[in-house]
Amino acid sequence: MKIAVLPGDGIGPEIVAQAVKVLEALRSDGLKIEMEHAHIGGAGYDAAKDPLPEATLKLSKESDAVLLGAVGGYQYDNLPRPMRPEQGLLRIRKGLGLFANLRPAMVYPELVNASTLRPDIVSGLDIMILRELTGDIYFGQPRGIRTLENGERQGFDTMHYSESEVRRVAHVGFQIAMKRNKKLCSVDKANVLDTSMFWREIVTEVAKEYPAVALSHMYVDNAAMQLVRAPKQFDVILTGNIFGDILSDEASMLTGSIGMLPSASLDENNKGLYEPCHGSAPDIAGKDIANPLATILSVAMMMQYTFGRPDIAQRIETAVRKVLQQGLRTGDIYEEGKQKVGCAAMSDAVVAA
Amino acid sequence: MKIAVLPGDGIGPEIVAQAVKVLEALRSDGLKIEMEHAHIGGAGYDAAKDPLPEATLKLSKESDAVLLGAVGGYQYDNLPRPMRPEQGLLRIRKGLGLFANLRPAMVYPELVNASTLRPDIVSGLDIMILRELTGDIYFGQPRGIRTLENGERQGFDTMHYSESEVRRVAHVGFQIAMKRNKKLCSVDKANVLDTSMFWREIVTEVAKEYPAVALSHMYVDNAAMQLVRAPKQFDVILTGNIFGDILSDEASMLTGSIGMLPSASLDENNKGLYEPCHGSAPDIAGKDIANPLATILSVAMMMQYTFGRPDIAQRIETAVRKVLQQGLRTGDIYEEGKQKVGCAAMSDAVVAA
Ligand SMILES: CC(C)[C@H](C(=O)O)[C@@H](O)C(=O)O
Ligand SMILES: CC(C)[C@H](C(=O)O)[C@@H](O)C(=O)O
Repeated sequence: MKIAVLPGDGIGPEIVAQAVKVLEALRSDGLKIEMEHAHIGGAGYDAAKDPLPEATLKLSKESDAVLLGAVGGYQYDNLPRPMRPEQGLLRIRKGLGLFANLRPAMVYPELVNASTLRPDIVSGLDIMILRELTGDIYFGQPRGIRTLENGERQGFDTMHYSESEVRRVAHVGFQIAMKRNKKLCSVDKANVLDTSMFWREIVTEVAKEYPAVALSHMYVDNAAMQLVRAPKQFDVILTGNIFGDILSDEASMLTGSIGMLPSASLDENNKGLYEPCHGSAPDIAGKDIANPLATILSVAMMMQYTFGRPDIAQRIETAVRKVLQQGLRTGDIYEEGKQKVGCAAMSDAVVAA
Repeated sequence: MKIAVLPGDGIGPEIVAQAVKVLEALRSDGLKIEMEHAHIGGAGYDAAKDPLPEATLKLSKESDAVLLGAVGGYQYDNLPRPMRPEQGLLRIRKGLGLFANLRPAMVYPELVNASTLRPDIVSGLDIMILRELTGDIYFGQPRGIRTLENGERQGFDTMHYSESEVRRVAHVGFQIAMKRNKKLCSVDKANVLDTSMFWREIVTEVAKEYPAVALSHMYVDNAAMQLVRAPKQFDVILTGNIFGDILSDEASMLTGSIGMLPSASLDENNKGLYEPCHGSAPDIAGKDIANPLATILSVAMMMQYTFGRPDIAQRIETAVRKVLQQGLRTGDIYEEGKQKVGCAAMSDAVVAA
């Protein structure tokens, strides 16, 4: 198991260090794990004037999986766009062909009070959002700022999806649905966008290969509402890059504990990049108060999706559940009566469990 | 006050009939109100094979304001796209130049339990979302489905905003903020989209003319989260057409009572189209159980924005508050201990109040 470790910025280095502890514990248990570190985001800019240094992309290509912390920090906010931390993220996704972004949104029974939604609405919530990650308006050309014939300036971008792009992510979606509750909701804006009309046509076609899965379609505005109204109606949500960006963040916030949510971004061969859903939180960086569990749970996803070891994934997840049951909480998920611990103490507890 | 009345489909006719009752009551009080009805949506298709019949657009252009119910129904779901009900909506917006869509999301103290969010998170919520309504990827050209050089098909759309489009809606946003809490949050995806980068530049420029307003910028994915996490942090949200579509629906659902939420869509001269935020709900059409209050409150917005009569708007809003305080509830906002009433009885109570 060759893993590229990219801590990034803000709390990235400290949360990744905790996940590395878990990997090291698995290694002493006999797993053949090799890790190599490299820079990304602001750290890449600082080290090599590039948010995705060539060496980082090379290492990532040569590895089976990538473990990423988070990118971004105030000191990079005024750099020209190509130098900004998030460009490292966009480029590594594209560079590795990571088209399938899996973002679970689940509520742990121990943390149901962390949600801003009523417990009856979110308890037991367990959704998987599958977001296409290398197409759509994120990468579409042409784009830019141009001057119109009347002398006015105009900003523009191109949204597009080709048949093969929709087809491959749809297959991933149906396969995930087959392993879950066999319900897939494809989200688009087919009443307005031609890209969406096309998306819907292809998804419907792919569905024929998965007769056991109940496919539904929903407009994105309705999906944004339904996630608030009755999120448990969903099992797997399949959607494009930009709608997925919005809906997966909305869904993760329903849980009230985004410090707990991992993510996986996969290529055609299940090579993957694994990172927590939350950001780099520069305001709390270096204080040993960040929640390392999302990053640790990202290692669980790595074991499941890239290395085909659901048993190890399960072991990590069970350990995380156990520390929650023991009452340990980092500040972001703390509630009265529980024991507040720091970032390192939390991961020590997970390793012990 | 010349008002075009477009009931549309589903519950449209019955909720509009209630709002018309309110207008008639105001007329007997001395307001000079003229109303004329016309078809839109599925009703337009049934009457004239066109979701926006020429006569409807003509009437709307000649009127000062348009009162619309809702469009859409199962029987139109398989029509070719240009014939579908929502095309009537898109075309009347474009045809009348209604670029500024105002969507308040507010929680009435009487209805705080209707929300799926915890009362402490939403009680007192009062946000105004200003969505640009005639630009963006909704109307951008080129768009369609094309065959690429490699023989593959691809769906595509164009997102764009010109300087004058951003400028005029930004002015509306700052003016609304001036009348409220002087806080404007502009939502975009400037870390990825060139259209957004341009949007942000122009909004920042326009802000200089409103030094009293505190302007902030937020990415759309973060906004979708923050609306769930802490919606009361917002006062006025300004955003483009597609992001506004998603966020305004999300925000309206936070209240738990979209049967209460009106909207206004204004042109450069405050001519406006007024409609409830909710849809045509064909499943409950004709049963006298729909909530007419959003449509009645849309008349209040009409009085305020098109006819410059905040006093009358206030009077309608006060009457609505009064019937809520009396304990009257349609089924969608019913809770135990209250008095369930039908659509017509509800509007009778408002007129009486
Ligand atoms: C940082 C940004 C470019 C990125 C995205 O929009 O994809 C982020 O929001 C995410 O979801 O990973
Ligand atoms: C019906 C649809 C075309 C419309 C839109 O996307 O604008 C609706 O969702 C709305 O918000 O009024």
